[in-house]
Amino acid sequence: MELEDLANALIKRAKQADLGIVTAESCTAGLMCQVLSDAEGASQSFHGGFVTYTKEHKSCALDVPEALLREKTAVSPEVARAMAEGALRHSKAGISAAITGVAGPEPDDDGNPVGRVCIAVARHGIATRGFERHYPDTGRESIRQRAVADALKAMTEALGSVSAAA
Amino acid sequence: MELEDLANALIKRAKQADLGIVTAESCTAGLMCQVLSDAEGASQSFHGGFVTYTKEHKSCALDVPEALLREKTAVSPEVARAMAEGALRHSKAGISAAITGVAGPEPDDDGNPVGRVCIAVARHGIATRGFERHYPDTGRESIRQRAVADALKAMTEALGSVSAAA
Repeated sequence: MELEDLANALIKRAKQADLGIVTAESCTAGLMCQVLSDAEGASQSFHGGFVTYTKEHKSCALDVPEALLREKTAVSPEVARAMAEGALRHSKAGISAAITGVAGPEPDDDGNPVGRVCIAVARHGIATRGFERHYPDTGRESIRQRAVADALKAMTEALGSVSAAA
Repeated sequence: MELEDLANALIKRAKQADLGIVTAESCTAGLMCQVLSDAEGASQSFHGGFVTYTKEHKSCALDVPEALLREKTAVSPEVARAMAEGALRHSKAGISAAITGVAGPEPDDDGNPVGRVCIAVARHGIATRGFERHYPDTGRESIRQRAVADALKAMTEALGSVSAAA
């Protein structure tokens, strides 16, 4: 229920701000899209999302530089920011959130541990914010849900501050 | 469990054919990505997907012509084919499936009824196949699951025939 509540709150705020939402997801593999599409009034604010499960598809669909992926691995605030900005660029939405991390059960090929997740929120005209979380390894589904919850909260916060400034 | 089995079978066939998989989803909003990412060995074959919930995002992310969306509505075999081909073009994958339809609870803005779903499968070098299904209105989640099941089966069949001809 918590994810549902967070998604409803975000969609309501996005409508007030008259901004469409787009997502970019790696380890959550579309869960954020699922949750947003089920929110009340989603069809007016939720544009869609990019599920970029491999590094190659992060470059292909979202223009994440291959050199950045090599240097920082896929699980880094830098890559999360590039994903969020890529999603904005390839949509007409006004705000985006990206999630890239390791949901498990195994660490990734670069040695990033299960539970390490990076999240970023991008909006035109303000600096893209990226941050890192270390969730306890309570299982793949649980890590995915926590990551989506934090991404939805971060987008809602970004809309709140923008609205307060307007 | 049925979706899990279908996804495992598809990933196995894709590995044998040495082809990556990409998806394009509208009414299923990322469910096909979720299911594929949980399949055994997914990380070697599943590249990712495009969730295009609005008509605008179908044009923006997958180059579906706006005129086609106006003429045929979003729920048509023609738009499903354009989505599948757009997903291939914006990835390095070798096979794609697209789903566009009405999961409910209401008909869409163009009057397409709940349960009408169009699916297409695209591969380089062969004609893109699109077809239409009319599922009974047994609820949003049930319609989504049936659509994903049919898309996974259609991709597996497309890989089967290709392999037999090789």
